[in-house]
Amino acid sequence: MTLPRKHLFDLPPGVIYLDGNSLGPLPKGAAERAQRTITDEWGGQLIRAWNSAGWMALPQQVGDRIAGLIGAAPGSVATGDTLSIKVYQALAAALKMRPDRRVILSDSGNFPSDLYMAQGLIGTIDKGYELRTPAPQDVAEAITEEVAVVMLTQVDYRSGRMHDMAAITARAHAVGAVMIWDLAHSAGAVPVDLAGSNAEFAVGCTYKYLNGGPGAPAFIYVRPDIVDNIQPALSGWLGHDAPFAMEPEYRPAMATERMRVGTPPIVQLVLLDAALDAWEGVSMAEVRAASQVLSERFIREVEARCPTLRLASPRDPQARGSQVSFAFDHGYAAMQALIDRGVIGDFRAPDIMRFGFTPLYLDEADVVRAAEILEEVIGQELWRDPKYQTRSRVT
Amino acid sequence: MTLPRKHLFDLPPGVIYLDGNSLGPLPKGAAERAQRTITDEWGGQLIRAWNSAGWMALPQQVGDRIAGLIGAAPGSVATGDTLSIKVYQALAAALKMRPDRRVILSDSGNFPSDLYMAQGLIGTIDKGYELRTPAPQDVAEAITEEVAVVMLTQVDYRSGRMHDMAAITARAHAVGAVMIWDLAHSAGAVPVDLAGSNAEFAVGCTYKYLNGGPGAPAFIYVRPDIVDNIQPALSGWLGHDAPFAMEPEYRPAMATERMRVGTPPIVQLVLLDAALDAWEGVSMAEVRAASQVLSERFIREVEARCPTLRLASPRDPQARGSQVSFAFDHGYAAMQALIDRGVIGDFRAPDIMRFGFTPLYLDEADVVRAAEILEEVIGQELWRDPKYQTRSRVT
Repeated sequence: MTLPRKHLFDLPPGVIYLDGNSLGPLPKGAAERAQRTITDEWGGQLIRAWNSAGWMALPQQVGDRIAGLIGAAPGSVATGDTLSIKVYQALAAALKMRPDRRVILSDSGNFPSDLYMAQGLIGTIDKGYELRTPAPQDVAEAITEEVAVVMLTQVDYRSGRMHDMAAITARAHAVGAVMIWDLAHSAGAVPVDLAGSNAEFAVGCTYKYLNGGPGAPAFIYVRPDIVDNIQPALSGWLGHDAPFAMEPEYRPAMATERMRVGTPPIVQLVLLDAALDAWEGVSMAEVRAASQVLSERFIREVEARCPTLRLASPRDPQARGSQVSFAFDHGYAAMQALIDRGVIGDFRAPDIMRFGFTPLYLDEADVVRAAEILEEVIGQELWRDPKYQTRSRVT
Repeated sequence: MTLPRKHLFDLPPGVIYLDGNSLGPLPKGAAERAQRTITDEWGGQLIRAWNSAGWMALPQQVGDRIAGLIGAAPGSVATGDTLSIKVYQALAAALKMRPDRRVILSDSGNFPSDLYMAQGLIGTIDKGYELRTPAPQDVAEAITEEVAVVMLTQVDYRSGRMHDMAAITARAHAVGAVMIWDLAHSAGAVPVDLAGSNAEFAVGCTYKYLNGGPGAPAFIYVRPDIVDNIQPALSGWLGHDAPFAMEPEYRPAMATERMRVGTPPIVQLVLLDAALDAWEGVSMAEVRAASQVLSERFIREVEARCPTLRLASPRDPQARGSQVSFAFDHGYAAMQALIDRGVIGDFRAPDIMRFGFTPLYLDEADVVRAAEILEEVIGQELWRDPKYQTRSRVT
């Protein structure tokens, strides 16, 4: 099957959705799956559904499906919690692997929550750890022998700039540092060769390109050859080797299952599982090729139509994830005006208009039409309308 | 309205459900609410639903509703994550409040995940903390000036034995220790005067007596007069004072909002919000009175009918939560045989048959019928059937 496969999604009429990098749309069949889980399984089978409806196995099954999209082996990805929690788990485990070092290296383009979680962990341990955040392009040089852990988001949430996963990981390993990749804007967006990179940890969320729905569970990968030595910081009962033996002492479960914590959110997991059906038979190489066609076309159209917007993403498509950002001083208001006209992107402070390209449900005509509407908004200064100036809490 | 209010729940025909203390049943209207959220809000409004459908405000709204059931002030309860995560948050914050002490006091009856999370935190901090777990009845005496934090589950998950919240908290405070209550088997089960107890922290889950569904989000309470001094260990972006300002440094949000971490599981929150409707107009005193009638009757019937079962809960109803446990050497098989006959309780290792009493949807006739069926299973040794011997992972 070729891309796009719009028929697999319930997209509202009249909307061009360029914000699948923030919250993916509703896949067809997902609502029905959730309904069945709520009514037949929870309602009809009650507590028995943990076994009879396969709820106990679901986190691992979904983890295996995600593994297939990020170049990881089956059994190496655990699902659950939020991405911030998974960042904390990975970072706490990584620091234990380099007890003699005190530097966590990230970059200034990392998503703030990743940095916040590092700050919280540093405060909790309280042994003089330091978080360094050079500019993204200076990271490689900043990887020195002081560094315990390099923790980066592969694709910058603002600019779409993409780190070279293999090169940065190799550099980290060359100085004896542990590597953590946040794949929030990579999973389902670009081909990821996680096993090939040899990184120790990766984390990610599933409500963006994977279309798992609002608050869908996160995931964590641990490299199979080291996982049996990981002593989880967040050692909850569902990461225990025998959760229902109710032993007084924590004993980690086999492999990446030990990174599970508490009772999994079954309804959200079912939605995610249904959403992953849309990836059956698609290769990430195919997605990447289509995404580059879409984003190159968008850049061309916008630059021709809206000269006041400045490209805030790398011009080289190989150096970009699956989004394109433009800087515009009135970006917040302009994005509201655009959304009001059915083209949904989002805004990221201070001045970034962000557009995600998701080839599962977007085609070139969508992209051209979006650029046309953007041209109206910018050219006619439609963003000056007072109603677009009031900031809400999201987007 | 008097109890029970069975018409508010979708209970499968032919089932007497005595396991609402493990997973509450499906409240009527919850499936429809979830469907609307999935189809109209996620599907129809996409990213805009965070504002337009009120998703951003939902965690706090649901927290306020839970606060009303546990004797806490509005704004003092945050929702999200799992109970294990909330235990970690509370414990990490509590230890920071007593930096000169190194003992965490719990009890041997605490739910294992609470103990596991403490063990994980101790390992993460790695500064010689010690977890002590005396028998439940010896806890009060073990609260000494060495103790930094007393962390207890009010109602014992196995026996149903209930700690005296006010007395234990007073004792902890008398020696300068911080108090954390786990209300997993209290919220919606017994009246809780959290503010009156003066405890610093409480945590709980919502899929038991609150009927929020499988993997429903957990909650955490922080005493309002101390919350502004709490520096969260799990400092995620949604606990930041201005999540969308994307600042590089974590600044905690006002009040208990700072205990939020990552993107909330909207569909599970909506299910929980719908489930909380069943509590409108019910007082916890009324629930408690009804629960004691049910559990007293059950004990009387079972003791008369099944002399080989030994009561494993306190005989005094004031000293018990809303469950009754019986010890039986073949408890696992007997529970399977019972479930096979439509009476659903659960089993907790090593030999506990556990029955929850949930007056929202149970009446005295249910309880008598359950005892009759239990009498058949035990008296006729129906549990000897080989099909009841194979252990599954849950119940």
